[in-house]
Amino acid sequence: MSLSLFEHPVLAAHFGDDALAAHFRLEAEISTMLTFEMALAEAEAHEGLIAPEAAAAIAKACEDFAPDFDALREGVARDGLIVPELIRELRKTVPEPHAAHLHFGATSQDVIDTSLVLRLKMVLPMLAARLENLIAALQDLDERFGHNHLIGRTRMQAAMPIPVGARLRAWMMPLSRALDELEDIGPELLQLQFGGAAGTLEKLGDDAAGVAARIGFLLDLDVPQTNWHTQRDSIARFANWLSLISGALGKIGQDIALMAQNEIGEIAMTGGGGSSAMPHKQNPVRAETLVALARFNATQLSGIHHALVHEQERSGAAWSLEWMILPQMVVAAGASTRLGAELFDAIERLGAAE
Amino acid sequence: MSLSLFEHPVLAAHFGDDALAAHFRLEAEISTMLTFEMALAEAEAHEGLIAPEAAAAIAKACEDFAPDFDALREGVARDGLIVPELIRELRKTVPEPHAAHLHFGATSQDVIDTSLVLRLKMVLPMLAARLENLIAALQDLDERFGHNHLIGRTRMQAAMPIPVGARLRAWMMPLSRALDELEDIGPELLQLQFGGAAGTLEKLGDDAAGVAARIGFLLDLDVPQTNWHTQRDSIARFANWLSLISGALGKIGQDIALMAQNEIGEIAMTGGGGSSAMPHKQNPVRAETLVALARFNATQLSGIHHALVHEQERSGAAWSLEWMILPQMVVAAGASTRLGAELFDAIERLGAAE
Amino acid sequence: MSLSLFEHPVLAAHFGDDALAAHFRLEAEISTMLTFEMALAEAEAHEGLIAPEAAAAIAKACEDFAPDFDALREGVARDGLIVPELIRELRKTVPEPHAAHLHFGATSQDVIDTSLVLRLKMVLPMLAARLENLIAALQDLDERFGHNHLIGRTRMQAAMPIPVGARLRAWMMPLSRALDELEDIGPELLQLQFGGAAGTLEKLGDDAAGVAARIGFLLDLDVPQTNWHTQRDSIARFANWLSLISGALGKIGQDIALMAQNEIGEIAMTGGGGSSAMPHKQNPVRAETLVALARFNATQLSGIHHALVHEQERSGAAWSLEWMILPQMVVAAGASTRLGAELFDAIERLGAAE
Amino acid sequence: MSLSLFEHPVLAAHFGDDALAAHFRLEAEISTMLTFEMALAEAEAHEGLIAPEAAAAIAKACEDFAPDFDALREGVARDGLIVPELIRELRKTVPEPHAAHLHFGATSQDVIDTSLVLRLKMVLPMLAARLENLIAALQDLDERFGHNHLIGRTRMQAAMPIPVGARLRAWMMPLSRALDELEDIGPELLQLQFGGAAGTLEKLGDDAAGVAARIGFLLDLDVPQTNWHTQRDSIARFANWLSLISGALGKIGQDIALMAQNEIGEIAMTGGGGSSAMPHKQNPVRAETLVALARFNATQLSGIHHALVHEQERSGAAWSLEWMILPQMVVAAGASTRLGAELFDAIERLGAAE
Repeated sequence: MSLSLFEHPVLAAHFGDDALAAHFRLEAEISTMLTFEMALAEAEAHEGLIAPEAAAAIAKACEDFAPDFDALREGVARDGLIVPELIRELRKTVPEPHAAHLHFGATSQDVIDTSLVLRLKMVLPMLAARLENLIAALQDLDERFGHNHLIGRTRMQAAMPIPVGARLRAWMMPLSRALDELEDIGPELLQLQFGGAAGTLEKLGDDAAGVAARIGFLLDLDVPQTNWHTQRDSIARFANWLSLISGALGKIGQDIALMAQNEIGEIAMTGGGGSSAMPHKQNPVRAETLVALARFNATQLSGIHHALVHEQERSGAAWSLEWMILPQMVVAAGASTRLGAELFDAIERLGAAE
Repeated sequence: MSLSLFEHPVLAAHFGDDALAAHFRLEAEISTMLTFEMALAEAEAHEGLIAPEAAAAIAKACEDFAPDFDALREGVARDGLIVPELIRELRKTVPEPHAAHLHFGATSQDVIDTSLVLRLKMVLPMLAARLENLIAALQDLDERFGHNHLIGRTRMQAAMPIPVGARLRAWMMPLSRALDELEDIGPELLQLQFGGAAGTLEKLGDDAAGVAARIGFLLDLDVPQTNWHTQRDSIARFANWLSLISGALGKIGQDIALMAQNEIGEIAMTGGGGSSAMPHKQNPVRAETLVALARFNATQLSGIHHALVHEQERSGAAWSLEWMILPQMVVAAGASTRLGAELFDAIERLGAAE
Repeated sequence: MSLSLFEHPVLAAHFGDDALAAHFRLEAEISTMLTFEMALAEAEAHEGLIAPEAAAAIAKACEDFAPDFDALREGVARDGLIVPELIRELRKTVPEPHAAHLHFGATSQDVIDTSLVLRLKMVLPMLAARLENLIAALQDLDERFGHNHLIGRTRMQAAMPIPVGARLRAWMMPLSRALDELEDIGPELLQLQFGGAAGTLEKLGDDAAGVAARIGFLLDLDVPQTNWHTQRDSIARFANWLSLISGALGKIGQDIALMAQNEIGEIAMTGGGGSSAMPHKQNPVRAETLVALARFNATQLSGIHHALVHEQERSGAAWSLEWMILPQMVVAAGASTRLGAELFDAIERLGAAE
Repeated sequence: MSLSLFEHPVLAAHFGDDALAAHFRLEAEISTMLTFEMALAEAEAHEGLIAPEAAAAIAKACEDFAPDFDALREGVARDGLIVPELIRELRKTVPEPHAAHLHFGATSQDVIDTSLVLRLKMVLPMLAARLENLIAALQDLDERFGHNHLIGRTRMQAAMPIPVGARLRAWMMPLSRALDELEDIGPELLQLQFGGAAGTLEKLGDDAAGVAARIGFLLDLDVPQTNWHTQRDSIARFANWLSLISGALGKIGQDIALMAQNEIGEIAMTGGGGSSAMPHKQNPVRAETLVALARFNATQLSGIHHALVHEQERSGAAWSLEWMILPQMVVAAGASTRLGAELFDAIERLGAAE
């Protein structure tokens, strides 16, 4: 399939990021949905709402579950959501008298939002490690070439010589701040969503808080005082963070493409893309793609902010707008970090000795 | 794979559009690329630049070609483009002394842009037929319910009764104008791109115009006086048109979701999405998705307009930004028309008899 | 005032466009609103709905009207709209028994949308003349320098020499298409809006069509079969056109900034911005601003497309979103054409003789 | 002037925010620019780079300075920037032999970016106080109406009754998190920019750090280890924060507009906008405007993120794109907080007693 460049069977080799994309495949999505259902049942058993045998039967059903994809597609065509049919199918595999206890008190949004959070929980440390590596690579470049000089340029005109290190630090600082910001972004984002039909967990009565706390414990997620299903600011803050990463690397990519111009030659790199018409050319394709990814995420971020206008207790419109946008933003940011690292590795010279 | 909601193996049953998406799969992409190479060779033979035997050998190689996807991925990881490696592989299958004549005088952009145009040539009539059907369905609803009344509402407040037909015509007119606009959009968009390495077809000398005209004839594409590789306004105008379609349907979806509110009940529909927590609910999921798709395309359009800043004779950054965005805009517009048609079919009552 | 760069008392000398901005000042806004009210009364008299004396009294009141701006501000703070208070004030100046006939059958949206259209009617020929001048300037540059050569560059790398004329034609074609497109954009956009409270002109009964036709005649505006108050696609198509203009000039600006790099020197220009730190520098500030204006309009266009989701018979939210965005898009496009013309005038050399 | 709705002489009474807009008027801009120049001179005197008499003369000139606006406009038309001509004029008023010491070692960007920061330093506590008031108002509403019930609604359909307090808390939490986030946003944003021609303060030699530290002390701004002129992530993070505020209030506005529908009546409010055609109507204009402001800022944010691609040591294109967008984002967020407060004040009932 190739509708999205980020999972194009061929072009994703340049534009995509397999390691991150794995968390947005159907398998990962359903797997984390089942993880939520298991934790829900176990927590409800722990709080005495359902029998331990029910929780065990549900856990086993989840472990053994093999979805009927055709039925899921039919369900989705009707419901616009994967969860109702998924639960219907899964319930058929839970032996009686336990089937009715599956998904008890929860709603689709609990499953979908918590599934997302469980996957982002795996994504954040991956991006953090990438940022650390990029920062280390820039520090290494600074050690190797920081004392060289290049022409400082303002408004596309030569201004005066500056040390290469000055530009490298300007490249590094935004990445370093993004890494620091993760300490705020992460805890705010990685929160259990558990609210039931309209956010009040009305079916659980006085046990609601206990069940939520237990699910949080089992899934290693923080439990907010109130569920966050209509409060999408943490998603938007995360999307902003993703675009700050791709934006920081977009500036670097633009600088490198300018440095690599034939008449300027302030950078020497191995590799570089070939041309079908002019085999001698060495195109700075990674640098250019960093610019494209920055502009892609800058564009997408707007859609995520429009989704803040999430009316009432659940907006199908605002919520599915997020689904259309967020996964590719993650992979675009990831591809930026991957291409940035490859680009830094390929650098053989920056600036010139005085 | 499921990074893009529009080709999600399950969710695309609601959000996607298989018929349109087919034109953005790798198979269609490579197939139209090979179509270009065949036409190029045939045109060059027709103009006496290469031997008829060379054109025949190239045509046969294209017909028999089975890409080595691993090699393509490796090539893409190096070049950021599919064409250089594709030509390398394809050339190996052209018997000597003809291999050198493959792709003669052309460049990657000729192949990629013309491949896109060839696929859009199939997409446009599909969207036109969808628009015609939507307009007919609205006219049918007008005949059935146009004389009923509903409460005209301004600024979310009841104003006064209006005929249902007044609202239906307000829904229909933008779709009708979009259909009309296709007569301008189409011819401008469906133009051969053929410029060679830097747009001047320098390898073809005085035969350039003849070869271009012949390729246009073979591919049934108009041939512009100058190649359009750096002029992306036709793409942007097309993207605007896509967003006008999804926007028109987004307004309809928003209206229907408001009419379907329980206390208002100005519409009765069959179907409607189920809930995992409240089986009695009938959610207007198609209507909500129309709003989401409108906002998705409204967001994406911005990125396509940023890609107008396409520097020099080819911008890898601006060009690949289009690749990231355009295919999903087409499918989002397509899904809008499909969901709109389903929604109109499901309507059993609009407004109330006086 | 200086919130908007486009009317900043100092910076607008570079970024703004006084001639176009004049149509978006309060004076022009109120003046065209009064023009609508006069034409409405005259048309209603012509159709026998009100007495000729009433129309004459209303016309005189409109001509003599001096708004009480403090009262208007108070009205706006309450209503979110200028019209209710404007009519209240104006009505006080119409002698009895005619006052009640002012604004008869119309609503705020009729006044505001038609006022906008009347002003765009003056804006379109101005932009058309600018486009014609730009095209002529490029043709002149082609005559002077088209035979020179510059290095054709793809993916920011030197490819091969191309004639300067090839690049000039690539700059010109999108401007030429924008000029042509105006023939479609104009008639569609310059339509009377006249619908009354909820779009059905219910107060005018059988005389509605006659009154509308007469207003159209008096204002020299086409009259659509149905009013367009909830159909914002013509606005969006116009906004797209504005962004195509600034986008075409943005590509030119980016090219010129790259050509003007010290090591490349493919262009010589007079003027160029000074620096407070380095008086010797000649910054290509106009070229850079063309890029900024292109990206500004590319960003704004998205908001106009979100406003297509204009619910029911009037959306205060979607409508006022247009007000926040559209005027500055017009002026940004206008400033692009002005700066583009200045830039072309300043060119003393393009490329090099062979 | 009325190009921007936010400073429209009449409409700004509803859409604008005078208190915040004041910081983006020319007077405030020039005043903070002069503040920078005074601090620079005083710091350079403190470090022994210039004579104390020179600093005193410069301070006096700054205090007495009355710009020649016509000359500034001419300078801007040439330079695209206000600073070169401002310094030229100001220097004429500094008595010899001190004139040459004005602006010593600094560049336009130091003046402009630091001027912005000095004004944002006044803006942040204003927005913080607004957020605190909004949170307090919501807590007050919770006390008064939190025990009432309304119909929890998911996907625009009635789900089940929920306490009004549940919705109020969902409204409040994002505002509360925005207030918390200010503790991170503020210190990162309020940093001196001081880099000289190309960011290296080359004219100040070993005294650079001392001068910078002293300016920071005098202006009460943090001094970063390296200047941030090409690192715009703090600006982008701030813009994201602004859009989170308007987005949180946009969700509230959308909810209130839906609650205020005639058939639903889950809210009673005083005020409400009047209509020119139907005087009886009470339009929830503030609620609708909150939605429009949310979508405005969601749109604008994209442009600020595009400006992250800030090439080399100063990008005239990316930088001026910020100028076109940021001030109106601040005022849009401010207007959101103002209208939100007015809306909360106007609420007389939320939901219904059981």
